[in-house]
Amino acid sequence: MTSAYQNMTDAALDAALADLERQADDLRALNLKLDMARGKPSPEQTALSKPMLDLVTSETDLTDGGSSVDNYGDPDGLPSARALAAELLGVDPANVSVIGSSSLNLMYDCVENGYVHGIAGCKPWCQQGTVKFLCPAPGYDRHFTVTESFGIENVPVPMREDGPDMDVVRELVEKDPQVKGIWCVPRYANPTGITYSDDVVRAFAALKPAAPDFRIFWDNAYAVHTFAGEGEPLLNIFDALAEAGADNLVYEFASTAKVTFPSSGMAWVTASPSDMAELRRAFSAMRVSPEKVSQLAHVKFLKDAAGVAEHMRRHAAVVAPRFALVEEKLSAGLGELGVATWTHPKGGYFVSFEGPEGSAKAIVALAKELGVTLTGAGAPWPYGRDPRDTNIRIAPTYPSLEELGQALDVFVVAVKLVSARLAKAERA
Amino acid sequence: MTSAYQNMTDAALDAALADLERQADDLRALNLKLDMARGKPSPEQTALSKPMLDLVTSETDLTDGGSSVDNYGDPDGLPSARALAAELLGVDPANVSVIGSSSLNLMYDCVENGYVHGIAGCKPWCQQGTVKFLCPAPGYDRHFTVTESFGIENVPVPMREDGPDMDVVRELVEKDPQVKGIWCVPRYANPTGITYSDDVVRAFAALKPAAPDFRIFWDNAYAVHTFAGEGEPLLNIFDALAEAGADNLVYEFASTAKVTFPSSGMAWVTASPSDMAELRRAFSAMRVSPEKVSQLAHVKFLKDAAGVAEHMRRHAAVVAPRFALVEEKLSAGLGELGVATWTHPKGGYFVSFEGPEGSAKAIVALAKELGVTLTGAGAPWPYGRDPRDTNIRIAPTYPSLEELGQALDVFVVAVKLVSARLAKAERA
Repeated sequence: MTSAYQNMTDAALDAALADLERQADDLRALNLKLDMARGKPSPEQTALSKPMLDLVTSETDLTDGGSSVDNYGDPDGLPSARALAAELLGVDPANVSVIGSSSLNLMYDCVENGYVHGIAGCKPWCQQGTVKFLCPAPGYDRHFTVTESFGIENVPVPMREDGPDMDVVRELVEKDPQVKGIWCVPRYANPTGITYSDDVVRAFAALKPAAPDFRIFWDNAYAVHTFAGEGEPLLNIFDALAEAGADNLVYEFASTAKVTFPSSGMAWVTASPSDMAELRRAFSAMRVSPEKVSQLAHVKFLKDAAGVAEHMRRHAAVVAPRFALVEEKLSAGLGELGVATWTHPKGGYFVSFEGPEGSAKAIVALAKELGVTLTGAGAPWPYGRDPRDTNIRIAPTYPSLEELGQALDVFVVAVKLVSARLAKAERA
Repeated sequence: MTSAYQNMTDAALDAALADLERQADDLRALNLKLDMARGKPSPEQTALSKPMLDLVTSETDLTDGGSSVDNYGDPDGLPSARALAAELLGVDPANVSVIGSSSLNLMYDCVENGYVHGIAGCKPWCQQGTVKFLCPAPGYDRHFTVTESFGIENVPVPMREDGPDMDVVRELVEKDPQVKGIWCVPRYANPTGITYSDDVVRAFAALKPAAPDFRIFWDNAYAVHTFAGEGEPLLNIFDALAEAGADNLVYEFASTAKVTFPSSGMAWVTASPSDMAELRRAFSAMRVSPEKVSQLAHVKFLKDAAGVAEHMRRHAAVVAPRFALVEEKLSAGLGELGVATWTHPKGGYFVSFEGPEGSAKAIVALAKELGVTLTGAGAPWPYGRDPRDTNIRIAPTYPSLEELGQALDVFVVAVKLVSARLAKAERA
């Protein structure tokens, strides 16, 4: 694709550049301080869960089934919390451990288990030379940071509109025994917002890994985070495994980080019975009991999957207009110019933006100059290396609609100016 | 020391044995089901913290200094929570991270950091061959489980009435670069209940480890858990380090596990500025934010060190009578027999009991038969190996006073019967 700027005469391009520089100067003079960097719920959203804080009081019965909420015990979480967590993922509560408030922490612990203790009787990864994780990219930077922190080699895999490129995944997983895992966000992926198709989910379930200690890290972070109606369906990976006659292949994670309070929710992991037995052994050395008071409050507030869906409709009422504004501003500002594409998610927290080759770092830097913080260019790639320097993650949830509109206006100018400068540089 | 049973004539010993067997049979017939196994607060104690559950409601301002309680951020915890945690240990809040509800989890993470990432620029322990941790014994079984889970060699060190035998510690730490850490509970130690003397604390601060990546794991679990008055003073280890001109030697841990709710408290770690910088780097890959709603509730409830002391006096009113009953029942039942000694703690959660050589496993098994669960014999030793099989940990806090009295009566009979059997066996 060639852009409007590339197609201009030299004089027209110079005029466009001069105009854009003036617009940038005007914006710079406003001393804006806006943030579209992180996937944080807005204050309007967290306020939706404040009623939860009234549900556990000094008068509350602090038992749950046979469990004491206020004392040690229940390393897998309260029975009611496990039931809710299981229902949300369509799995058996017996295979669920609800622990802590951070699913990222559980993912870290599962990587740690492979690295330090070893999976399924295999040697620990720390004794297997260089081991690798596949990182569909663009993806979630904190996933990649976990494996990078262990010195595991992060290998990028192309993302398509229906999930990771499964031909590439299959080739790597089935031929290379050093490949020990893959990071996946199967619904409303971070940052592209796409949902894996049934074919992709079935292709995952059908993998025949070269390494018996290979596991799919299935981070269903946005399992219930849809903007309208039922949202895009995701095939249950454990159903797909059963169909394929496979087992011991998937760790699935989820949390209420963006359902209730990001720092104070509940997080859980589920896997096959034998994988869970192994994880529980590892977890038993790590901690005594999970945060059961918080779990009780969550269960009283959210109740069940229907209660969660109702609550998420309230979130959607706040979030959907922000995503609509992204679509509107980008279409209006950039739609005719042929400089960029972006995704159109139906749920989740992000829009993934693709600018001209070699533009992303410059756009992020220019936006910063003009008062708008974006996620660092390259962050959604292993080691921060976007090979074409095109991808920018837009996180529209936290700012108010007004601030978001301003931030997007700045972003559009930054994209145009950088694109025009690139077109000019091509002619030099 | 020779016991009353050893000093008896054969006939008197046979008569005593017959009488004790009858007492055991009578107890067995009661089908008791009592538990003195784990250091759990009683329901009366956890009830003391229920008013905390009324302090954060939907009406509460969810900010804390400049921080949002209800969103991401503050990886080191809320400012107010850090201030409280720091005051309780007499350290600078800047050097404190309040994370999660389990200090054991933080200790695990610190061991993991040494094992996976390496401390102070040294190679990770997983690349240094067999590394070792010193385990003053009897000690806390879950400490030893953490290092054992990494394949670290747990080396027992004798415990004395004023702390670990520092001649042994010094010899091992200063000569063997494979020694990377030592587990300490410096106040009201688990299970002996003793508090380290100033000399012992100063000896720790004066250690010159052979390994630059050696750290003291200073688990101040019972920092505020005293039965009466101010309790036994513990010299601040960081003050002792400053006196000694030392640095980067200690990780100190504490939590509110036995102040508020065991599963849902707040836990923290403090260390030197450069150690904390290193730990924070490691922690930053592990999780995003700590449980700030719970932290806010804790700060509102406990307020400051004076508030904690007041709250702990309420705990003491519940706990102290239980420890008095242990003293009373053991003195009355065993005081004249010369078969056993036990500790007389002024705080904490445990009494450490020493029976005749080769008796502990048999006593625990017999008590179990008679309906009383005790901590497994040997548990307070690395790998569960009590070299003389004499030590039993008594955890008197959880049962009601009435149940505790019954359990101690059973325990006394079990000790006497096993001691008499041993005396008989010596004559065979």
